[in-house]
Amino acid sequence: MVVKVYGTAYASPKRVLACLIEKGIEFEAVPVDLIKGEHRSPEYLKLQPFGALPVIQDGDYTLYESRAIIRYYAEKYKSQGTDLLGKSIEERGLVEQWLEVEAQNFHPHIYNLTLHILFASALGFPPDEKVIKESEEKLGKVLDVYEERLSKSKYLAGDFFSLADLSHLPFTQYLVGPINKEYMIRSRKHVSAWGSD
Amino acid sequence: MVVKVYGTAYASPKRVLACLIEKGIEFEAVPVDLIKGEHRSPEYLKLQPFGALPVIQDGDYTLYESRAIIRYYAEKYKSQGTDLLGKSIEERGLVEQWLEVEAQNFHPHIYNLTLHILFASALGFPPDEKVIKESEEKLGKVLDVYEERLSKSKYLAGDFFSLADLSHLPFTQYLVGPINKEYMIRSRKHVSAWGSD
Repeated sequence: MVVKVYGTAYASPKRVLACLIEKGIEFEAVPVDLIKGEHRSPEYLKLQPFGALPVIQDGDYTLYESRAIIRYYAEKYKSQGTDLLGKSIEERGLVEQWLEVEAQNFHPHIYNLTLHILFASALGFPPDEKVIKESEEKLGKVLDVYEERLSKSKYLAGDFFSLADLSHLPFTQYLVGPINKEYMIRSRKHVSAWGSD
Repeated sequence: MVVKVYGTAYASPKRVLACLIEKGIEFEAVPVDLIKGEHRSPEYLKLQPFGALPVIQDGDYTLYESRAIIRYYAEKYKSQGTDLLGKSIEERGLVEQWLEVEAQNFHPHIYNLTLHILFASALGFPPDEKVIKESEEKLGKVLDVYEERLSKSKYLAGDFFSLADLSHLPFTQYLVGPINKEYMIRSRKHVSAWGSD
């Protein structure tokens, strides 16, 4: 069964793609154009009532929220492709901890940078320089904690690559690419080694 | 082994307590006073480098982020007390989806209401009426989606109580109690039935 993934042009759905690729699962990309407001169409809202990306359809199973989807596939195909959950319940606990850190501490700031630096003009509002400055400062403090953590283990949850690391990929690619703030990664030795892995 | 839970006077740690109680796991509460800034002490930052609540210590295992902790105990003691993860990988997927909805869609708005209505004066800043009004409106729209969902299943992830429902408890208690916005639950028939369950 080929997995349909909605909205693959955007960063959160790319979190799902990264997981499907690691697990060797076939997928089909279904475009959703946020600029045209397709995520607000009645058809889309039937799949995702909050109008957010991504959604997957896998036969008659529909699931949304990118971090829920990656957990689902990492669990369902645990022994296929890269194991992304750790070898014990304790390792899985640390994967969950750093997945939550990504969602609660890392994401809000990098999302604000993405929104105000990359998408503001396309969405028709002026970039808020105050938000950009504050988000950059707060993201820097989060990355300082990552630097300390990554001086002690190769990856966030331990010496194994996991969903927690994978979940950072799409927005970090924005940060070092079009957002043009690669210095935030490069100026931190262990974060830099982690990012280039 | 008794589980030490830090900061149990506050809502996020209560998410952990609710889970430990459902699973029949003994715990010991360790006070952390946010008003006195104890979450910024060097000792606390060794346990939780972002200075957030809660943290648990279970023997020599330390874990933070409330939603990671509840997943850990729900998995570790799956067959003890209430099963909170569903019976299949597909049910678990839906539990994860609604846990993410709680974290990403429900929590930010109810957290803002809590901060500005309950804690602003204790923390020494004026409540922002604009934030309160916008958060209430946005939370209302989220609860409209819940109303639709709960018209079709008894609980969020299906006809079984799970971590997804449990995760809403502490801040919903603030909402219907000291925040004094019980109408937001009561005015929605299925949300109200869910909330009183």
